[in-house]
Amino acid sequence: MKIALVGIGKIALDQHVPALAASDDWELAATVSRSGRVEGVEHWQDLGAMLEARPDIRVISLCLPPVPRFEAAMQALQAGRFVMLEKPPGATLGECHLLRETADRLRLGAFATWHSREAAMVAPAKAWLADKTIRRGHITWREDVRKWHPGQDWVFEPGGMGVFDPGINALSILTEILPVPVRLTGAALEFPENRQAPIAAKLRLTNAITADFDWRQEGPQTWHIEIETDQGGLALHDGGARLKIDGAATSPAPDALAGEYPRLYRRMAELVRAGRSDMDLRPMTLVADAFLLGTRQITDAFHF
Amino acid sequence: MKIALVGIGKIALDQHVPALAASDDWELAATVSRSGRVEGVEHWQDLGAMLEARPDIRVISLCLPPVPRFEAAMQALQAGRFVMLEKPPGATLGECHLLRETADRLRLGAFATWHSREAAMVAPAKAWLADKTIRRGHITWREDVRKWHPGQDWVFEPGGMGVFDPGINALSILTEILPVPVRLTGAALEFPENRQAPIAAKLRLTNAITADFDWRQEGPQTWHIEIETDQGGLALHDGGARLKIDGAATSPAPDALAGEYPRLYRRMAELVRAGRSDMDLRPMTLVADAFLLGTRQITDAFHF
Repeated sequence: MKIALVGIGKIALDQHVPALAASDDWELAATVSRSGRVEGVEHWQDLGAMLEARPDIRVISLCLPPVPRFEAAMQALQAGRFVMLEKPPGATLGECHLLRETADRLRLGAFATWHSREAAMVAPAKAWLADKTIRRGHITWREDVRKWHPGQDWVFEPGGMGVFDPGINALSILTEILPVPVRLTGAALEFPENRQAPIAAKLRLTNAITADFDWRQEGPQTWHIEIETDQGGLALHDGGARLKIDGAATSPAPDALAGEYPRLYRRMAELVRAGRSDMDLRPMTLVADAFLLGTRQITDAFHF
Repeated sequence: MKIALVGIGKIALDQHVPALAASDDWELAATVSRSGRVEGVEHWQDLGAMLEARPDIRVISLCLPPVPRFEAAMQALQAGRFVMLEKPPGATLGECHLLRETADRLRLGAFATWHSREAAMVAPAKAWLADKTIRRGHITWREDVRKWHPGQDWVFEPGGMGVFDPGINALSILTEILPVPVRLTGAALEFPENRQAPIAAKLRLTNAITADFDWRQEGPQTWHIEIETDQGGLALHDGGARLKIDGAATSPAPDALAGEYPRLYRRMAELVRAGRSDMDLRPMTLVADAFLLGTRQITDAFHF
């Protein structure tokens, strides 16, 4: 199937292009971007022009930041194409609902991807937790925003979500692996005095689960989730890449298709063949609820 | 049908008790409250004890603030009762979703009431707008928090929503009367330096609709919605009580059942007979999106 990539920045070049190149399902037939390009691939500056000129491209994968992504996604749906969305699937829940309803009404499909759910040990963690009772849990998601988003002011703009840009990855894993629904019960957000989005957040959730998100961690980066159950505990390390059960490392089941983005594109191919959407908004709802219910504390100004 | 009222404060005594007394559908069979009472009605301090002692009371109406209301609503549903919820239906969207899912699973019903939608001229406004194209609109919702919530610190606590406590009433009317879905595209929130919830908010929505919510208005109070269409304009005044179309006042169709709360209780009776829920979360989603997408400005401290 032919696919077009919209937004040729770091995530597109690092993840999407190699995943598509390695896939038997997909042919990268066009790119759309103001600046970035992929060598040897037809390039467009304008999405509307590409959609009109290339009716043979049925699927559009959008690697834009959340605020500009919505209009592009609606444009693609209204031109009769399936859309694949980087996380988070919108800047607001209202946008996400409208994308889902539009895809349903036009009998197309929208895929709200959560790449962290495709990390190697997320599925084994989910399988292990399936028959257990959750006693407590803790998420530690601490990274250096200067390293991962150098100079990207949009992450601190309204709609950029601040530290929830990485934190939503942890919440996407949590909602995937737990055998019970989880709700937010409290939050404390730290806003730099010169920014509109939080740089750190502490969350309280049901089942005695807590989370510590921080974008100011220099040196080693930490993406860990620990869950204690009535039958022992598990720890997911390195964003879901490694799993320990009761302290012992486990190995993933063999899977010919390794890597988060190759798995996302395999899933997208399934959705297109089935004519279906996959828009799980639970991680996004937890973030919205953290902004709605959270306390706000002003902290030191942040400069890249 | 027998009903119990939980939370006997100002709203219960001013609105719920008279509406139930005037209704042919309902008998107020019990109250639950730490402090308030209704003369001549069986009183309980503890919800769990009442639910156990009075299996004949099938419906529980909850007049508590959003944060304590959720646990009470879950307790009532799990005891096999229908629940009716004051607005907003939860402190978080996660709570609202779980209440709806629980009601569905147990084949009961939950009714997220929006009392302002029952104001006399909301239905005529909706009927008039049904075949028109929205050009622009403006909401002015300005009131004095000291007058309407004297000393109620919870309205400024996390989960109390601040000025969105009245503002969500305007959004409930807007989402009811418009013939098209509406989304939030921007917001500016003002937080008093000593409070955790906004005292004022300006919103931008699709269809060139704007909103101005302010809790600092002394003197005359303003609850107006103006909508311009391709075929003239309407103005809802006094929270939906009066309607002007192209500047001319209109009269409501005769309705034997006048008043917001009598209409809510009539609707609740219909839902119980049909075994259904009515949980429209669009007003709440717009509020969550305003917190998610809004800019934050610190303003003068607020003291009651």
